[in-house]
Amino acid sequence: MFSFEVIAKSTESRARAGVIQTSHGDVETPIFMPVGTLGSVKSISPEELVEAGAQIILGNTYHLYLRPGCDIINRFAGLHRFMHWNKPILTDSGGFQVFSLAKLAKISDEGVTFQSHIDGSKHLLSPEKVMDIQACLGTDIMMCLDQCIQYPATREQCRTALKITTRWAQRCQQARLDSQNGSNALFGIVQGGMFTDLRRQSAEELMGIDFSGYAVGGLSVGEPVEVMLEMAEFTVPILPQTKPRYIMGVGTPENIVELVALGADMFDCVLPTRNARNGQMFTRRGVINISNSRYRDDTDPPEPGCRCYTCRNYSRAYLRHLYLARELLAYRLNTIHNIYYYINFIKSMRAAIVADEFESFRKEFYHERKS
Amino acid sequence: MFSFEVIAKSTESRARAGVIQTSHGDVETPIFMPVGTLGSVKSISPEELVEAGAQIILGNTYHLYLRPGCDIINRFAGLHRFMHWNKPILTDSGGFQVFSLAKLAKISDEGVTFQSHIDGSKHLLSPEKVMDIQACLGTDIMMCLDQCIQYPATREQCRTALKITTRWAQRCQQARLDSQNGSNALFGIVQGGMFTDLRRQSAEELMGIDFSGYAVGGLSVGEPVEVMLEMAEFTVPILPQTKPRYIMGVGTPENIVELVALGADMFDCVLPTRNARNGQMFTRRGVINISNSRYRDDTDPPEPGCRCYTCRNYSRAYLRHLYLARELLAYRLNTIHNIYYYINFIKSMRAAIVADEFESFRKEFYHERKS
Repeated sequence: MFSFEVIAKSTESRARAGVIQTSHGDVETPIFMPVGTLGSVKSISPEELVEAGAQIILGNTYHLYLRPGCDIINRFAGLHRFMHWNKPILTDSGGFQVFSLAKLAKISDEGVTFQSHIDGSKHLLSPEKVMDIQACLGTDIMMCLDQCIQYPATREQCRTALKITTRWAQRCQQARLDSQNGSNALFGIVQGGMFTDLRRQSAEELMGIDFSGYAVGGLSVGEPVEVMLEMAEFTVPILPQTKPRYIMGVGTPENIVELVALGADMFDCVLPTRNARNGQMFTRRGVINISNSRYRDDTDPPEPGCRCYTCRNYSRAYLRHLYLARELLAYRLNTIHNIYYYINFIKSMRAAIVADEFESFRKEFYHERKS
Repeated sequence: MFSFEVIAKSTESRARAGVIQTSHGDVETPIFMPVGTLGSVKSISPEELVEAGAQIILGNTYHLYLRPGCDIINRFAGLHRFMHWNKPILTDSGGFQVFSLAKLAKISDEGVTFQSHIDGSKHLLSPEKVMDIQACLGTDIMMCLDQCIQYPATREQCRTALKITTRWAQRCQQARLDSQNGSNALFGIVQGGMFTDLRRQSAEELMGIDFSGYAVGGLSVGEPVEVMLEMAEFTVPILPQTKPRYIMGVGTPENIVELVALGADMFDCVLPTRNARNGQMFTRRGVINISNSRYRDDTDPPEPGCRCYTCRNYSRAYLRHLYLARELLAYRLNTIHNIYYYINFIKSMRAAIVADEFESFRKEFYHERKS
């Protein structure tokens, strides 16, 4: 079960608000999806995710395939029960990880062979296998296997990766239709590097296959932010208005505001979780570094007025103390705040779109950062 | 405010059940106190402690004095608000840590000078200063500064440490009476190494000072468990029946059953928290090592039937996966279970004492371990 409906459009930009329906519940777009690579959003519990407002999380096919492995997750009839999360899950296909984490990734007719980054064991991921794994994980939104390339890359490299990505996307869709999991959603991933004509070609080829939604991959791989936005600005409007548009692995709150303005609906990023573990906390006025000595006796919460569990109960001085002492609770309390910040920042943006006040939201957002 | 009442005594052993009243609430004895050295029971939140049944926790004077320091905790009017915990807190005096963790500990007339284990900075802890710090922390039960010595130690070393401990205890009590914090509870700490006559001398000298409760220190410092129990068996009955008796830093569930049988009321130990972080989980049938490959696809919770958050929602296979992947959630879920196990194990023991069925509880306890 999967559907998407646009319920409001900004008259001042391409920003839009929508609802995705899945068999594990609804997702209100624009949405931020916390990253739970290995079946856990690092340091926090499913209940804390729900309390922070999370409606959908990410898992990673490459990581979960390597450990614990499908045989184990199968014993639990999927990732939801295994990790005690009953809202929607989207799984990245593993394309990005095979080419960034694994060793000796090699593309063959069948798929991609590689060595595990954990123990060096050899594996083959094919489009069909990636679909099998995602079916075993029981995820609500599956992603096609794609070839994600580094930045910078030559036009020829990008064109080759694009062709492979399209071929794999066709095979993923075919595998989905051939299996009993044809009812799960499957998204295609637009590649094409930083070349607009290749982006267009990739998008058009994928639209010909007809997916449940479309992702823009291969961004936030090291290119300047202007180039990232330029690619998104070019690519997003090409994608069908009636389908969710997902910008993968992006980004800062500033990036997200701009991408929503372009009509993007879905986002995932490790920034709120990873930065939390590095002592960086997101606030309306920008990022604060909790280890800063200016907070040593600061009785205020990280963000005054914030309603997250961390801000309601703890001070900057306490969080700084925990962080400097490397107490495990530090990572968790920082993460709870950052996840809450991201989700509620996008929730407010959605409300502004529904009220057709997106531009004043955007202005206020930048204004607060400067103050 | 502090009082202690024995509400039931076993007719089959010296085991007893009681209630300690403090201004932050009641504590039902026998009690296990989770260790929150630096103002956090490692990896878990105050709410999780309460859910697991915790009624009182430990903080450490030495550690909190070094960081974050009293000036900062003072800004929060004490440790309770700083760490978001509003039930009773007992603080260890730091005697044990000065002699085990700090460098170049040197005893003078005034107190003990040492170098911080964190940055090598020089400090002096005197009985008066330790009382000042504990007053600043606002703890419900303060402990006297004592000289804890290593095992083995000569009779002469033990006698010297005992004398210093008594002298410091007198000065702690005097400081308490001189200050406006005279209403807080203060416990004396019996030393004397593994020599029964010195244990008796220490206990008698401390009883002469008249404390709110008495602790047995210097146990679980490397001696064989039989020696530890022998010392406790000798010392506990000497201590006043009308006051709480606290065995410091002990121990395994087996140790605790035996010590309760001797009439001990209070316990603290890092075992449930530290072992959780090493993948060891306590169950009625003994300790299980969650990383064991036998659990790789085990859909059962760590302890079937256990009502803790972890056992209600997660499987051994998932916990093993998290632990092997070093996911931060692993340490937390294991800790929640172990704390729940310890607290509820003692809670059941208390119920058995109240029902005067302590011996059958003890038999059943050992019987389950063997099965």
